[in-house]
Amino acid sequence: MQKRNATAAVIGAGDYIGSEIAKKFASEGFTVFAGRRQGEKLAPLVKEIEDTGGSVVARGLDARNEEDITKFLQEADAYAPLEVCIFNIGANVNYPILATTERVFRKVWEMACYSGFLAGREAARLMLPRKQGAIFFTGATASLRGGSGYAAFASAKFGLRAVAQAMARELGPQNIHVAHLVIDSGVDTAWVRERREQMWGKEALDNPDLLMPPASVAESYWQLYQQPRSAWSSEMEIRPFGEKW
Amino acid sequence: MQKRNATAAVIGAGDYIGSEIAKKFASEGFTVFAGRRQGEKLAPLVKEIEDTGGSVVARGLDARNEEDITKFLQEADAYAPLEVCIFNIGANVNYPILATTERVFRKVWEMACYSGFLAGREAARLMLPRKQGAIFFTGATASLRGGSGYAAFASAKFGLRAVAQAMARELGPQNIHVAHLVIDSGVDTAWVRERREQMWGKEALDNPDLLMPPASVAESYWQLYQQPRSAWSSEMEIRPFGEKW
Amino acid sequence: MQKRNATAAVIGAGDYIGSEIAKKFASEGFTVFAGRRQGEKLAPLVKEIEDTGGSVVARGLDARNEEDITKFLQEADAYAPLEVCIFNIGANVNYPILATTERVFRKVWEMACYSGFLAGREAARLMLPRKQGAIFFTGATASLRGGSGYAAFASAKFGLRAVAQAMARELGPQNIHVAHLVIDSGVDTAWVRERREQMWGKEALDNPDLLMPPASVAESYWQLYQQPRSAWSSEMEIRPFGEKW
Amino acid sequence: MQKRNATAAVIGAGDYIGSEIAKKFASEGFTVFAGRRQGEKLAPLVKEIEDTGGSVVARGLDARNEEDITKFLQEADAYAPLEVCIFNIGANVNYPILATTERVFRKVWEMACYSGFLAGREAARLMLPRKQGAIFFTGATASLRGGSGYAAFASAKFGLRAVAQAMARELGPQNIHVAHLVIDSGVDTAWVRERREQMWGKEALDNPDLLMPPASVAESYWQLYQQPRSAWSSEMEIRPFGEKW
Repeated sequence: MQKRNATAAVIGAGDYIGSEIAKKFASEGFTVFAGRRQGEKLAPLVKEIEDTGGSVVARGLDARNEEDITKFLQEADAYAPLEVCIFNIGANVNYPILATTERVFRKVWEMACYSGFLAGREAARLMLPRKQGAIFFTGATASLRGGSGYAAFASAKFGLRAVAQAMARELGPQNIHVAHLVIDSGVDTAWVRERREQMWGKEALDNPDLLMPPASVAESYWQLYQQPRSAWSSEMEIRPFGEKW
Repeated sequence: MQKRNATAAVIGAGDYIGSEIAKKFASEGFTVFAGRRQGEKLAPLVKEIEDTGGSVVARGLDARNEEDITKFLQEADAYAPLEVCIFNIGANVNYPILATTERVFRKVWEMACYSGFLAGREAARLMLPRKQGAIFFTGATASLRGGSGYAAFASAKFGLRAVAQAMARELGPQNIHVAHLVIDSGVDTAWVRERREQMWGKEALDNPDLLMPPASVAESYWQLYQQPRSAWSSEMEIRPFGEKW
Repeated sequence: MQKRNATAAVIGAGDYIGSEIAKKFASEGFTVFAGRRQGEKLAPLVKEIEDTGGSVVARGLDARNEEDITKFLQEADAYAPLEVCIFNIGANVNYPILATTERVFRKVWEMACYSGFLAGREAARLMLPRKQGAIFFTGATASLRGGSGYAAFASAKFGLRAVAQAMARELGPQNIHVAHLVIDSGVDTAWVRERREQMWGKEALDNPDLLMPPASVAESYWQLYQQPRSAWSSEMEIRPFGEKW
Repeated sequence: MQKRNATAAVIGAGDYIGSEIAKKFASEGFTVFAGRRQGEKLAPLVKEIEDTGGSVVARGLDARNEEDITKFLQEADAYAPLEVCIFNIGANVNYPILATTERVFRKVWEMACYSGFLAGREAARLMLPRKQGAIFFTGATASLRGGSGYAAFASAKFGLRAVAQAMARELGPQNIHVAHLVIDSGVDTAWVRERREQMWGKEALDNPDLLMPPASVAESYWQLYQQPRSAWSSEMEIRPFGEKW
């Protein structure tokens, strides 16, 4: 692996998608700055990346805290130029409208939208002087469709998508690639498998072609990163081949 | 005018669109509950409605405050069954991404999205036992498009649209009509006229066909209200005939 | 009923939606020109309209024939100024892609798209000198979504929607209202009921709230026609309140 | 270059995008079957591919002719399994609605939509028995937006997009990747440069960042081809970084 003099920040480096993104960009020579709420949970990821010769810095991080985000990205940029920033925090909840408390509505927004705005803005601040960089946001079906019970989650995801669009339009001509990746299917995680089994029985898991492997999301981000600036996508929608939509 | 035993709440009864909505529904026999931040500014509206024989109750109201919203709607519903609730608070701002403070981002969201969620939810709570009612939200071009400089505003408007969609899907089968009205043009207000003149000169105002008259927005809401439940629109997009889009 | 010195052309005046549109506009005082492939099938519609004091002219018409369409609309306009033209021809078919013959693909397009273009263009030609008129097109779920098996039907409906958009943008500033009405549900016809019963059994018909009554479509067109030009919709989506979407 | 036992068909192998796609897939080891109306114009492309060690078969082809398309794809598949089929025929015209003849409307549809349906269907017929393949369609801004003057072109492009969607939904679970690439900008061709210069003067060409290089379109197709089936895009939108949208 050839090391690059560049960092890639992954905000929301959870056990599935976030970890795979971190591993992918580390394997491509980036020093990855991986942040998640409980920094100690990053130990296995750090080990896995370092075992394969990659470079990674793990940080505990409350992405809803402007100061935290700012410091995290500044630290990355001080280490080596911040070239990629991927925001990957979700907060998928489903409640009937009357059961959606103001606390839930606010918290989901803070996690899935507000913190994405902070991350995007601070990444842009570091990238703009160099006129170089990529800022990517993870979206979901709920980014495009407010399904029943999804007032809180869809509202936050719609809002994040708007941030991505506004930034893409403003920053594109400054050579900063802003994109929003819509994962239009369930992702293959322990939690999703459990929920599907509860809802539809064990058969629901028989078809592995219906869940998005986290590593495939990481590949999609790598594709976006590799696009020449003469043909950027500002939004990319992916789903497994067996998905009905 | 034949009075109805029904109330229509207008949240965000500002000088233009909100006032026209209030006047329209009052003229159709509803007792209108009109709320806006500074209740004292409602005096001219109250006078105008009462002078034409309509009924209106004016209240100062911080729509971002759960308790305020709840009390306001409960008071309306205690007066007569709440049949219509229209959320009409905007917060149109435009800043480059780096100049968008976290305070602006949060405040715009609280005004244009969070308070809409609160209003919609509390209206639904009052309407559901009767399985009857209409909940409408005012949208804008920025509900569908995150333009450059609109990270805060578009994010809030996208988020509000998601709330409307989720509520429409959940509440439609309960006979509650939830709809989102997209005003895809500038609205004819003193502020918009001033801004256009500053940007493009006096000629920008020569063509009156390019600005949406507030009373036409009120008419559109009246159309939505009149739709038979066998043919409801969940979203309606309006623009003046001269608008380019 | 007060008669108007104006005609409304209904192209595709079939037994359900088209007939209801014809009756609605006739009841509002228009002289309706009703056209469908087999003109003799229009007899009951003519009787029903005339029995209630309305005016109607029935014509057999191959809408795919430029000359036929042109003559039909010219005849209407010669009778009284053509103020409304509603294109309402569908051709709903579903075939696996390999079973979609070139003949089917072409014929569905000719019926549902090409003839709509001809009708819209010729109506515009008659309306433009007076700078007055409304041209409406009937759309469907397949106007927005290419579902499995709908290559032919969705392709034609997508294409018709594009015609409506292009015409709306060009003709709006000339005071001609062009709109596209998306019926996002099944319509309550004998054929749809039969198909649903075959697919899902008799229970599928138990819930009358899931099918769009043809008369409600007519009401929606009437709403579009009544919009002030300061607040035109170019697209309106309707569905019954019980519909899941 | 390692040769593959596979063919890639390019239908509409014109001087710009089509040629670049052909060169890209040839450079990746495919034997490219390149078809365009006037087969003799393919000579330079054949020379260029062969000079770099690639394999290409050039054929004159009227893509609107079912028999022609069928033979062309069968010949490719007989040579080596048809793994990729890219439909790339456009027909960009702009006329006011009254000046859009039925001949233009029909011809644009035959070129840009009907022939795409034929190509997609026949490619699917050859790929389905092997449950393997990729079918891609070139779209444009007019695939998503019916602009003023674009009744014919947008109608055809909308229609082609519907074909792509219906095929993607039906064939995805059969392991055939169907995708639609939206080029949301002008493409850098002699014709586009000339038109821009006429409309806006020489300065319109000063900014090379606003036109899509044909080779970048080819790269985007290559990206789509490389997507793992666990994360397929059914639509991808690209534009140059300097584009306003």
